[in-house]
Amino acid sequence: MAKKTTARSKDASLKEPLITLSAGPVAAYPRILQAMARPVQYDYDPWFQQFYEDLTKKAAKAMRTRAPALILQCEPAPAIEATAASLISPNDVVLNLASGVYGKGFGYWSARYHKEMVEIEVPFNESIDAAVVKAAFKKRPDIKVVSLVHHDTPSGTINPAREIGRIVRDHDALLIVDAVSSFGGMDIHPDDCFADVFITGPGKCLGGAPGVTFMAVSDRAWRHIKKNPKAPFASILSLSDWKDAWRKDKPFPFTPSVADINGLDAALDIYLEEGAENVWRRHALTAKATRAGIKAMGLALWAKTEAIASPTCTAVKVPDGIKDSDIIAAARAELGVVFSSGRDQTKGKLIRIGHMGPVAEPVYATVAVTAFGTALRKLGKKIDVGAGVEAALAVIAKG
Amino acid sequence: MAKKTTARSKDASLKEPLITLSAGPVAAYPRILQAMARPVQYDYDPWFQQFYEDLTKKAAKAMRTRAPALILQCEPAPAIEATAASLISPNDVVLNLASGVYGKGFGYWSARYHKEMVEIEVPFNESIDAAVVKAAFKKRPDIKVVSLVHHDTPSGTINPAREIGRIVRDHDALLIVDAVSSFGGMDIHPDDCFADVFITGPGKCLGGAPGVTFMAVSDRAWRHIKKNPKAPFASILSLSDWKDAWRKDKPFPFTPSVADINGLDAALDIYLEEGAENVWRRHALTAKATRAGIKAMGLALWAKTEAIASPTCTAVKVPDGIKDSDIIAAARAELGVVFSSGRDQTKGKLIRIGHMGPVAEPVYATVAVTAFGTALRKLGKKIDVGAGVEAALAVIAKG
Amino acid sequence: MAKKTTARSKDASLKEPLITLSAGPVAAYPRILQAMARPVQYDYDPWFQQFYEDLTKKAAKAMRTRAPALILQCEPAPAIEATAASLISPNDVVLNLASGVYGKGFGYWSARYHKEMVEIEVPFNESIDAAVVKAAFKKRPDIKVVSLVHHDTPSGTINPAREIGRIVRDHDALLIVDAVSSFGGMDIHPDDCFADVFITGPGKCLGGAPGVTFMAVSDRAWRHIKKNPKAPFASILSLSDWKDAWRKDKPFPFTPSVADINGLDAALDIYLEEGAENVWRRHALTAKATRAGIKAMGLALWAKTEAIASPTCTAVKVPDGIKDSDIIAAARAELGVVFSSGRDQTKGKLIRIGHMGPVAEPVYATVAVTAFGTALRKLGKKIDVGAGVEAALAVIAKG
Amino acid sequence: MAKKTTARSKDASLKEPLITLSAGPVAAYPRILQAMARPVQYDYDPWFQQFYEDLTKKAAKAMRTRAPALILQCEPAPAIEATAASLISPNDVVLNLASGVYGKGFGYWSARYHKEMVEIEVPFNESIDAAVVKAAFKKRPDIKVVSLVHHDTPSGTINPAREIGRIVRDHDALLIVDAVSSFGGMDIHPDDCFADVFITGPGKCLGGAPGVTFMAVSDRAWRHIKKNPKAPFASILSLSDWKDAWRKDKPFPFTPSVADINGLDAALDIYLEEGAENVWRRHALTAKATRAGIKAMGLALWAKTEAIASPTCTAVKVPDGIKDSDIIAAARAELGVVFSSGRDQTKGKLIRIGHMGPVAEPVYATVAVTAFGTALRKLGKKIDVGAGVEAALAVIAKG
Repeated sequence: MAKKTTARSKDASLKEPLITLSAGPVAAYPRILQAMARPVQYDYDPWFQQFYEDLTKKAAKAMRTRAPALILQCEPAPAIEATAASLISPNDVVLNLASGVYGKGFGYWSARYHKEMVEIEVPFNESIDAAVVKAAFKKRPDIKVVSLVHHDTPSGTINPAREIGRIVRDHDALLIVDAVSSFGGMDIHPDDCFADVFITGPGKCLGGAPGVTFMAVSDRAWRHIKKNPKAPFASILSLSDWKDAWRKDKPFPFTPSVADINGLDAALDIYLEEGAENVWRRHALTAKATRAGIKAMGLALWAKTEAIASPTCTAVKVPDGIKDSDIIAAARAELGVVFSSGRDQTKGKLIRIGHMGPVAEPVYATVAVTAFGTALRKLGKKIDVGAGVEAALAVIAKG
Repeated sequence: MAKKTTARSKDASLKEPLITLSAGPVAAYPRILQAMARPVQYDYDPWFQQFYEDLTKKAAKAMRTRAPALILQCEPAPAIEATAASLISPNDVVLNLASGVYGKGFGYWSARYHKEMVEIEVPFNESIDAAVVKAAFKKRPDIKVVSLVHHDTPSGTINPAREIGRIVRDHDALLIVDAVSSFGGMDIHPDDCFADVFITGPGKCLGGAPGVTFMAVSDRAWRHIKKNPKAPFASILSLSDWKDAWRKDKPFPFTPSVADINGLDAALDIYLEEGAENVWRRHALTAKATRAGIKAMGLALWAKTEAIASPTCTAVKVPDGIKDSDIIAAARAELGVVFSSGRDQTKGKLIRIGHMGPVAEPVYATVAVTAFGTALRKLGKKIDVGAGVEAALAVIAKG
Repeated sequence: MAKKTTARSKDASLKEPLITLSAGPVAAYPRILQAMARPVQYDYDPWFQQFYEDLTKKAAKAMRTRAPALILQCEPAPAIEATAASLISPNDVVLNLASGVYGKGFGYWSARYHKEMVEIEVPFNESIDAAVVKAAFKKRPDIKVVSLVHHDTPSGTINPAREIGRIVRDHDALLIVDAVSSFGGMDIHPDDCFADVFITGPGKCLGGAPGVTFMAVSDRAWRHIKKNPKAPFASILSLSDWKDAWRKDKPFPFTPSVADINGLDAALDIYLEEGAENVWRRHALTAKATRAGIKAMGLALWAKTEAIASPTCTAVKVPDGIKDSDIIAAARAELGVVFSSGRDQTKGKLIRIGHMGPVAEPVYATVAVTAFGTALRKLGKKIDVGAGVEAALAVIAKG
Repeated sequence: MAKKTTARSKDASLKEPLITLSAGPVAAYPRILQAMARPVQYDYDPWFQQFYEDLTKKAAKAMRTRAPALILQCEPAPAIEATAASLISPNDVVLNLASGVYGKGFGYWSARYHKEMVEIEVPFNESIDAAVVKAAFKKRPDIKVVSLVHHDTPSGTINPAREIGRIVRDHDALLIVDAVSSFGGMDIHPDDCFADVFITGPGKCLGGAPGVTFMAVSDRAWRHIKKNPKAPFASILSLSDWKDAWRKDKPFPFTPSVADINGLDAALDIYLEEGAENVWRRHALTAKATRAGIKAMGLALWAKTEAIASPTCTAVKVPDGIKDSDIIAAARAELGVVFSSGRDQTKGKLIRIGHMGPVAEPVYATVAVTAFGTALRKLGKKIDVGAGVEAALAVIAKG
């Protein structure tokens, strides 16, 4: 048989993929890529210092909060580690809310710093019930810090941040919200959910590149950090080091990641220009259409109820008798489409289809359904791809 | 009713489109876009002169011919005009082969320069029969110049360039081949088809930007141009002005379009690295899959027989009772997908789906079918989009 | 002796130059380079059509005129040819004003179209006297078209466009102004100088890339073109073809050079944001400082009087006994700095130092003087480079 | 007085600078900027994983070592912190070599982890004497880890890494070498100097952007880290987390900074293509010429002897009675040239002129001298700038 050399060949994986529908990093907007090609300016030059100050304010505007954003020169995972290191003191009782791999994982970071941890854990296809949080405070009024992953990406599920946030604030505790893969793709902001540390980045729903993190940190959180005897300084784990770095008359603790900073600037511009509500709407519609198509092909969503499924990521249960990695490889080989597997405890159990940034557009729901179905068919499953596409289109037609 | 602001809104056309499946200019490869951002070098500097010489040789290699390519600083349409102006002398009888709008159009340019024109015209959904060309030579052995559009883009149909070329050469006439939208997407080269002037550009199957043309001009053609008393010089219509411009020790007649030249360089690199045969194969497969999908939705191809349909562009007949512009607008509004209409005589009668460059990949066959079907359904037609997608996938599965 | 491999080596010319101080194309602004990397949009898509219309208005704003600019898809030299072809009818008496190579050259294009030509020619280091133009009209009141090169780049000299324009308009003739290498670098606009066709481009003082031309064409000129029985149409030499192309509801005669169009957009933004007066001021200061330095090194300017030397380009007489190409090669080899030679009649007699776009900044006056002096010294001349730099700095210090 | 709006105006600092001669981040090569605009690929996709593996080998090749490089997703300062955290165990006696701010600073990081520290400190304009290191080992044979900053950037001085490395290895201790601002600009590699952890990045002599670090870690170091009971894991401070991340079949601990990784790839290509020896030579020549010019203007170098002055950075003593920040501001305002101040203990005492990456070219020595002299003159000093430029040119002429 003739050697095939298209995207469908054995070595297809050595070709760049065609359409990335991953859970992030996502294929960035061209305008952001161009921004990262801007000249690298010297970080002590007044031009760059003014640019950086303006950027922190632009990020605050996007987060609909007042204080200039805190920017860390690393992608969000280590920024969350730094939050744990900076905020959690040896006197703090931490309530860790674990509805997924990332939520659960925070507990391990917390353990390095806290006095004690209370944990609410639910199966990783469910979400945290605000009432249970309330009950936890009743039992342990000494809880000082609460950690919540808004969208636990490895599960594709959303937690009720506003309700939980209200409770945390009522009990005068501090709330950390990981909104890395939800901010920019749905209606979530630091002030809405009473977050004291709100963490996100440009590499997911804003359609930018990974490499930096922007955050909102409340005055309450800064005061707590200040009192934390173990809060790191002169360290990449330190939030304090960067507290005043936004001011054009203050030096940076170390060199900012200039290209990523330039990319963040463009990512925020795109978001603000399109209008947040418009951005959220296309994320939601794409997710809804994808799910309709997935279900129409006889497949099951990972989330226990569709209500908790994220508008930015659809997790699909891996059908019995099939390996997740084979599905991913087949979609890649047959059509050049990239999906994400699960992580850790969800690895092998689900496949994730990202709806973030430039691919949070309805047409990519049809691409996702087509590629997912085609991959399963290639692996021997009987799948009605046509029905899947039709179901997705029916959702899109309703808008 | 709430104002919709996604790609599906009234003002959707003011958003940049998501997926361009036009007949060209196509959405360029990112690597080509980056190349166009290279520093602009001074055209008299030895570095640029060497670069330009190397580029003309690279273009020759891609065209599988020996002499360094002739590069003109304009997109191919005016380059074809320049060819008519330079090659056709007041003593020349021209045989114009018209199977489409571009073929027919060449006759008008020819008329400015030739002594007399013989024309073979076929309906614009058919292609030229080599036997008829032979017969024309029998009748008019004084034919000196023959003009052939290999892929008449406004019809999406291919003419038998090799057979015709053989006949032209046998009769010692000169052959102009417009391979603008076929070279790089299928097996066509100047020497294969005995072209004396072979014209193409980076903005179609190579996935580059419009703005320059590269050509192969035979020694026979150069001799004819030299003898042409009316051949322009010191003019943008002059091929001669640029004849030796490829040599690093020769000045340019006027400033080259540096950014487009840089883009062409990257376009050729991509083509040569991927391997021509691989590139053609994915163009062909995408076209075949698209057609299967289109037909499965009950639609008709424009081409009289599928054998003459171009692997780089699928022309679909506009169904009765529907306006072409409404289909294009609906695909754009519903899913952000761009198609091309016909041109002049084919305008209103067909819609063109481009399979060129980065979208000459099977996944885009499914996108094309989905968007085409969705657009028609939006306009009130009953269309089984699912069946269309399935038919496309069946072709893709066979590879 | 050890082989040197720095910019100073024998093969230095194979390295990209470091600092381009040419008479154009100039080293483009990074922001323009990034703009040329924007996605290539389909020219029939409404998004691109709106973008193009907006661009023509932006270009008009930069030229301080009302009607949307005419954009041609080629660099300015062929655009000037197209102007001759379109505007000059077989009934027209043309007054050609030749103070340099480009002015003289226009006469050859004119000769293809005019009835008769009157020419005022001055030595190529002088400029046209408005009084002489007035006298010409007195003698030949039937002059219908006047052609003026505002900055004859191969001489680096400026003609009094406003005075001449006033006279031309008073005599009801039509004026063509080639402002290719002066617009954007000094105070010159179509309406100021009563130009009927005003031609410029992004590749000189705006610091963009060559490849497109933008023009202002008066209603008087359009009327004349309309009446010209020989005005080309369906041709790259036709202005008429593009007359209405700016309108978003009109098709393009052929595909626009999308990357260059994107670059032009950024070039105009930069110019308008910086403020025209600021841009002119830095061009003027750089030129003045360069000239002070050149003269302080004992070298002579080409221009008969410094008053007619262009603020965008300094032409320096080649000292006796030295070859121009050796100076250029030495500056390139010793310091990686690029200068331009003369052209045709000025070739060998002068070297041109460009002050255009990003290098129209005083610091580049010191670079120019340093490199020029170093090159001559390398060729055996005794040159006080230090004195040259000091003289340039003295001008800069005064601002 | 009229408001000036050129680079020389009051608000000049709000314009982007023209020529950055900082100690880093440097103005990146255009080709690197373009590389950072490459599409963002998903880090779990096989294409990216292969790319990353290839990149680690390319970095190893540039460092002239065997094992694939360790890449950390942050700029070098935190990478050095991570090295301290990972390598230094509670049982380790550390010898800290402090000849500058960065060397001294390492001691503070070390203090968090070591058992005890021995420090050799010299005045910050001197360098470490290998004999003194030898003596230290004699006195304290239990020294387990030695830290050396090869080029202490805030002083612009170089330490004898090879001699010191030899001694460290002879005593079976582990050596950390910070070569951040020397690697790529001079002859220094991990194996030459027996470094167990060798740290550098793309943002200095390679002319790239800050944001990632690449390192060579010896097997001895990895063994030591493995035995370190306090070595961090699941942390941005962990080297171990990334130990095997170079392998295409291993996942990343967290998302790599894709754009910076792409930029690093291009930075290494440029370095390897030009040839290391050529790159070092132009750094050295530029530094030498700059120093000659600085001295000829009557100014003093910071380094006690020129022999220890770095070929990648020239530190100039701030003349009495003048503020460093005024010099920097004046060079910026007068000519748009950017210099660096000192840091911490050297702040206020010196100004640094970077010779790194694209500006490590002799022409920039003349720019540096011109701008430095001009700034001082503006501040009232009598400076013979011409003499400075001449002295620089004399060095350049000798090559």
